[in-house]
Amino acid sequence: MPNNPLNSLNFSGGPGVLPESVLQQVQEAIRAVPEVGLSILGISHRSDWFAAVVAELEANIRSLMNLPADYHVLFLQGGATQQFSMLPMTLLAGQATPADYLHTGYWSGKALPEARRVGPVRIAWSGQPGGFRHLPDDAELDFQADAPYLHYVSNETVEGLQFHRVLGRDDVPRICDMSSDFLSAPGDFERFSLIYAHAQKNIGPAGVTVVVVKDALLKDAPDTLPGFLDYRAQIAAHSIYNTPPVFAIYVVLLVSRWLRDEIGGLAAMDQRNTEKSRLLYQALDDNNDFYLGRAAGKDRSKMNVAFNLPNPELEQEFIAAALAAGFSGLAGHRSIGGIRASLYNGLQLAAVEKLVDFMDQFKSRNR
Amino acid sequence: MPNNPLNSLNFSGGPGVLPESVLQQVQEAIRAVPEVGLSILGISHRSDWFAAVVAELEANIRSLMNLPADYHVLFLQGGATQQFSMLPMTLLAGQATPADYLHTGYWSGKALPEARRVGPVRIAWSGQPGGFRHLPDDAELDFQADAPYLHYVSNETVEGLQFHRVLGRDDVPRICDMSSDFLSAPGDFERFSLIYAHAQKNIGPAGVTVVVVKDALLKDAPDTLPGFLDYRAQIAAHSIYNTPPVFAIYVVLLVSRWLRDEIGGLAAMDQRNTEKSRLLYQALDDNNDFYLGRAAGKDRSKMNVAFNLPNPELEQEFIAAALAAGFSGLAGHRSIGGIRASLYNGLQLAAVEKLVDFMDQFKSRNR
Repeated sequence: MPNNPLNSLNFSGGPGVLPESVLQQVQEAIRAVPEVGLSILGISHRSDWFAAVVAELEANIRSLMNLPADYHVLFLQGGATQQFSMLPMTLLAGQATPADYLHTGYWSGKALPEARRVGPVRIAWSGQPGGFRHLPDDAELDFQADAPYLHYVSNETVEGLQFHRVLGRDDVPRICDMSSDFLSAPGDFERFSLIYAHAQKNIGPAGVTVVVVKDALLKDAPDTLPGFLDYRAQIAAHSIYNTPPVFAIYVVLLVSRWLRDEIGGLAAMDQRNTEKSRLLYQALDDNNDFYLGRAAGKDRSKMNVAFNLPNPELEQEFIAAALAAGFSGLAGHRSIGGIRASLYNGLQLAAVEKLVDFMDQFKSRNR
Repeated sequence: MPNNPLNSLNFSGGPGVLPESVLQQVQEAIRAVPEVGLSILGISHRSDWFAAVVAELEANIRSLMNLPADYHVLFLQGGATQQFSMLPMTLLAGQATPADYLHTGYWSGKALPEARRVGPVRIAWSGQPGGFRHLPDDAELDFQADAPYLHYVSNETVEGLQFHRVLGRDDVPRICDMSSDFLSAPGDFERFSLIYAHAQKNIGPAGVTVVVVKDALLKDAPDTLPGFLDYRAQIAAHSIYNTPPVFAIYVVLLVSRWLRDEIGGLAAMDQRNTEKSRLLYQALDDNNDFYLGRAAGKDRSKMNVAFNLPNPELEQEFIAAALAAGFSGLAGHRSIGGIRASLYNGLQLAAVEKLVDFMDQFKSRNR
């Protein structure tokens, strides 16, 4: 029996739901971290205990992602937004040839102006003309061999679009913003030179961002950047360049243990996530006279299911009725409206089953 | 009776002790924020509730500091370290005349190389030749009228030195890093153009930094900075430029309510802090054949009391015996060693009384 049943029906786009067993450990840690005896909020980031937290979390992520030894794992502040700048400051400053960027939705679009402040950018493909309802096929894509790097977003949180394959050329560094599907499924992560993901979707609270970076990518990085924006300075300091967000990192550690020990790894996590999204998309397909899925079938996200109702008034009624029934976080992103059900790792299948039942009832009452 | 008595004896230099009543509210909020019904870790930063959190926290800080209306209050990520860069990027880039910086200890020294990356810096005074054991008198100081700004650190956390007056010229913008004495006492805050302070000493967990900035300071700020490093972009977004550290900001709100409602404001807080530090310094002065205070008398910090024992072996024994007796966080900063007792807002007088008793006993056993 969960401590607070409302948490289990939280479909928020982020910060998102965390596993109940993690929340219970966090609650205890506010009073006292078991192996320290002090509140997690009052433990020094320079303690041996916290160094061990960072080391274990790094090892857990390496193991879950099956990362080769030449990758570093960092825990930074500033969200994916800081990466939008830190990345081009490291790899694009002074370059004559443009980096390839895909513009597939709201968040990949946010990365563009920050990159353009630093160096030349080429939009290799844009979904804007199509209203960001689908992703490119391979035939539509033409990547430049001399690009300093390719940047794309694996899962567009707002529009509910997800790439189910790795893009780009093997001779150009692949950089991927995996903020909203990080650690949700296995992948060929060694094909990427840099992956970044803020925590607040699948792996923790807002306030920490994981960066996985291949050592060779940084060999020509400038040494003129402010220290906190210098990947190599952060690597040298084992993510403790300055005071890190101790609490957020500790929660991510607890989630990584849950993924490993309670779920059984990324393949098992993907099975659960696939089943959750299959159930909800089936409900959309079975009721496509009332619930109108947003994403093209082949590009549907397992993490964020965006859909519309016949009109905005019904959508408002839906959100209000859902809230009254205990479901939260179902309003679509403010940029596009509609409904969005986010099915992050921490959300259980039972929550989706309840949502589908609610959708059936709502349709019966309102069609 | 506190939930966990060990928390009340936490003398850590940071992250530091938080008030017991705040910890209890945080523990409840991990399960459910009372007025929302969801875990604080799963509430959207775009919710009306969180907008109200930011608005109330800003109002509480304005009221506690008695800030005029032309000041903005921001909640950013990246710690004081990010401010070491953000500040010169905003005010020093392209300047021909140097900014005045005081070098009074470890942390003001950390600000120097980051400023020098951006523009010219003049060290208006350095305590390095004296081993950072005292602060300058007015007669030693000569500030430049044409400096873009003056930067100093009000309280040197590592060395236990604190300015008990406002420095600088009224015709040059004063910038102050108040990380380790923020909201610990009243002050003439309207004499500063920008004040910054990370939370993890007096007001919350690591992961959020408060910036108080006078509007006029930013009138010529460049508009070419990355958005997250642009004070004006952060002001326009009411600190929600991108996903902010929701949890850390909420905890700071709870601390601000505690300061206002349980303590009664900054004058009352200062009374308590003065009494705590008076008691501990008295113990040093009464036992100056064994406990050797580090800071010159007039520059003693009310927040961080740094001292030595006759030799490093005794210091290690002291720290171990203190830990066994329930006291934590008493090891001096790794850069200088020795002992440091941090007496942040959340620490109660009773904890200092117990520490002084312990020091008496330890001296009796070891002299």
